[in-house]
Amino acid sequence: NTYRIAVIPGDGIGPEVVAEGLRVLRAVGGADAGFSLELEELPWGSAYYDRHGRMMPGDAIPTLRTFDSIYFGAVGRPDLPDDLTVWGLILPMRRELDLYVNLRPVRLYPGVPTPLRPEVGEPHFTFVRENTEGEYAGLGGRQGQGEYELAVQTGVFTRRGIQRVVEYAFSLAAPGSLVTSVTKSNALRHAFPLWDEVAAEVAARHPDVRFEKMHVDAVAYQLVKNPARFGVLVGSNLFGDILTDLGAGLQGSLGLAASANLCPGQRLALFEPVHGSAPDIAGQGKANPLGAVACAALMLAHLGEREAAGRIERAMEDVTRQQVFTPDLGGSCSTHEVGDALLAALERE
Amino acid sequence: NTYRIAVIPGDGIGPEVVAEGLRVLRAVGGADAGFSLELEELPWGSAYYDRHGRMMPGDAIPTLRTFDSIYFGAVGRPDLPDDLTVWGLILPMRRELDLYVNLRPVRLYPGVPTPLRPEVGEPHFTFVRENTEGEYAGLGGRQGQGEYELAVQTGVFTRRGIQRVVEYAFSLAAPGSLVTSVTKSNALRHAFPLWDEVAAEVAARHPDVRFEKMHVDAVAYQLVKNPARFGVLVGSNLFGDILTDLGAGLQGSLGLAASANLCPGQRLALFEPVHGSAPDIAGQGKANPLGAVACAALMLAHLGEREAAGRIERAMEDVTRQQVFTPDLGGSCSTHEVGDALLAALERE
Ligand SMILES: CC(C)[C@H](C(=O)O)[C@@H](O)C(=O)O
Ligand SMILES: CC(C)[C@H](C(=O)O)[C@@H](O)C(=O)O
Repeated sequence: NTYRIAVIPGDGIGPEVVAEGLRVLRAVGGADAGFSLELEELPWGSAYYDRHGRMMPGDAIPTLRTFDSIYFGAVGRPDLPDDLTVWGLILPMRRELDLYVNLRPVRLYPGVPTPLRPEVGEPHFTFVRENTEGEYAGLGGRQGQGEYELAVQTGVFTRRGIQRVVEYAFSLAAPGSLVTSVTKSNALRHAFPLWDEVAAEVAARHPDVRFEKMHVDAVAYQLVKNPARFGVLVGSNLFGDILTDLGAGLQGSLGLAASANLCPGQRLALFEPVHGSAPDIAGQGKANPLGAVACAALMLAHLGEREAAGRIERAMEDVTRQQVFTPDLGGSCSTHEVGDALLAALERE
Repeated sequence: NTYRIAVIPGDGIGPEVVAEGLRVLRAVGGADAGFSLELEELPWGSAYYDRHGRMMPGDAIPTLRTFDSIYFGAVGRPDLPDDLTVWGLILPMRRELDLYVNLRPVRLYPGVPTPLRPEVGEPHFTFVRENTEGEYAGLGGRQGQGEYELAVQTGVFTRRGIQRVVEYAFSLAAPGSLVTSVTKSNALRHAFPLWDEVAAEVAARHPDVRFEKMHVDAVAYQLVKNPARFGVLVGSNLFGDILTDLGAGLQGSLGLAASANLCPGQRLALFEPVHGSAPDIAGQGKANPLGAVACAALMLAHLGEREAAGRIERAMEDVTRQQVFTPDLGGSCSTHEVGDALLAALERE
């Protein structure tokens, strides 16, 4: 098995963390592992924009479709507007490749200091974030001048879009476990009642799984009061964005958090750490590569290489247990030193 | 000074917590205090709906304008749709009285168990939530049948609406302290760039106060990673809703959280605990009255009765220090017993 991986390091700390992820991927792939990786780097992002006036080439989407997977770093540079960078690279990839699930697992790693008192309970849940529509539809505009100016922002939620993402959430839930659908139908009274209806219909087709709907404010509350109550959560693009950053906080650092952007049933998927381009620390060797490394594990698992994925996860646990930490986790190791420790842990396995 | 207070206990646990708030108000008001309160109960809410087919009378808004203040419990009953209850009582009061600031202080009370480890730092901040427009505009609709059905939900943000709420946030900030404006302009690219622009303009008029803008996901993250970094936060209706429930979680219980709905410069304001009607515990004497009691303190402070407000706050601290707690805080006291303890504490003062 040879997998062709499109590697898009992108902006800011993206290239730094992706470099360590690639070292780990090279270490677990190869003849002994029963699979190999063809890693092809695509230099898209803000530097590409400087030269070409766009974040990625015009045929980027068909090009990406020829790969087995996409390994992504980060996007965004302070001197360029988000409307150009974010809306020119990551959001169109999510949408045009129809990667309608943004899967964000939250769990604790051994040795990592976390903000919650132990008696509160451990966060260990999977957030299934809708990734192609909703609040991120991008519709709206501004009107008027001076004191009369106003802006409208419109979210678009389709029955099909809700149904497929909730269906995926249920596919992850073991019998007897809990799926929580996150909405705010008491206030956003057009979109979320539709979401609630569709989610209840999907839930009725899965009587073996427990189901609840909960308002987003209550979920934010419960995540710090009783995080262990959650199993699988499913929510809109915006609510997923907010609550998974909160989840990363509960894990101890955004630098640890990984995500898979995927279209269930399809091989091609995009893996990206949840942290952004972090311009404040870019180029200083301070970025935590563990989020990108966790993405490498998610990617291999998605490609069916569960053993290699498991090796990476064990190496990560080994390294966090030894507290080989970058500054975000209170340590003083460099990005590359964490990579070294991961390779050493893989060799020891 | 006599203040006429409209008391609207509302639904669920509303009447239970309001009853204790009224006991406290009666105890601090009176001849010695230099002011008195005329408490007039308005039986609006779901029970009113059962009899009259609406949540409040047609002349409710002009009636409320004749009062000095409004002391509110909660709204919502599981057998009635939110579109009828929430949109028939609390949201129209906020909007039609133009109470454009929803002020939600977050602080720790002595003796209350909180979810964050002490080394993370203490949350002690004020959230200024926009309360009349934005995502809560209520605009949108549904279209189509079966698998093609969709819903749109539109937020409306006006320059004036943003400006006045951000201006109010700055009015609360001491020189050298920090105001954080919460948006999500990289994704919701029509509404929030306007908010960012207006907030930056207001900030430029307050060079003595430090200012930052931060994406809502990053704020959710920082609230659990480093809550002490925040001073005053200002954000949209929806973001304020989500982040203040999170803030209540950091305080230890929604049962403690209070809010003021106000129009700066105007006496008439509405005070309500952040918790809802909590139908699961209604009628059982389990509800925590401290949120409603903290509202009574906020109300008196707003009316200019700072000494009486301070007395209530000290009594609350006395009671939490003694851990006279309802079940939400891990205790077994009843709503009324907490009220008794508050009155005893006031007598001791
Ligand atoms: C960069 C930004 C648009 C993005 C998002 O909001 O989706 C990021 O915060 C994320 O969570 O992947
Ligand atoms: C009842 C509901 C509409 C309300 C809101 O979202 O504003 C509540 O959650 C609050 O925070 O006051």
